[in-house]
Amino acid sequence: MYIAMNRFQVVPGEEAAFEQVWRERDSQLETVPGFVDFKLLKGATDEKQTLYSSHTVWQDYAAFEGWTKSEAFRRAHEGAGDRKKLYLGHPVFEGFEVVQQS
Amino acid sequence: MYIAMNRFQVVPGEEAAFEQVWRERDSQLETVPGFVDFKLLKGATDEKQTLYSSHTVWQDYAAFEGWTKSEAFRRAHEGAGDRKKLYLGHPVFEGFEVVQQS
Repeated sequence: MYIAMNRFQVVPGEEAAFEQVWRERDSQLETVPGFVDFKLLKGATDEKQTLYSSHTVWQDYAAFEGWTKSEAFRRAHEGAGDRKKLYLGHPVFEGFEVVQQS
Repeated sequence: MYIAMNRFQVVPGEEAAFEQVWRERDSQLETVPGFVDFKLLKGATDEKQTLYSSHTVWQDYAAFEGWTKSEAFRRAHEGAGDRKKLYLGHPVFEGFEVVQQS
């Protein structure tokens, strides 16, 4: 199992707009082979930012990698440039292999 | 739903020892009210470290907070000081509220 997370430093006051973008996007993830589960996570807030992270579980790394090369991936990221005012800097990707599970 | 993650910068070459500590610990998490799921995640490796993160899902923040004040929490962290040679610096905690879920 593989977990792909993408961290966003959201501008204070733009949290609701940022969440709305995610709520309204048509990711078509459910149609992608190897997709398990998607969550949007909200982390800590300080005076400069609110941390958010997307959190997508895949059957394995190969499934995630296959998605990044798919038409569904391209469509899911259309218009991402227009949303840059909602967050600081670039999203930061982190991928994790699940090595133990209870 | 709430996800508690604790990030560890593991010393290169100590990955197997670090994973063994987690495999052998007796966390008793399954007995804690509101506990949902535990995973140990392995992230990126560079010349200085291998990133690991614990990943524990709770029904809500209150369940997580209750655990941190419990006897089970104290026991699960016994001997943590002895394991410091396996990782650089202190573990870094990050907690996340699940705000959307597919």
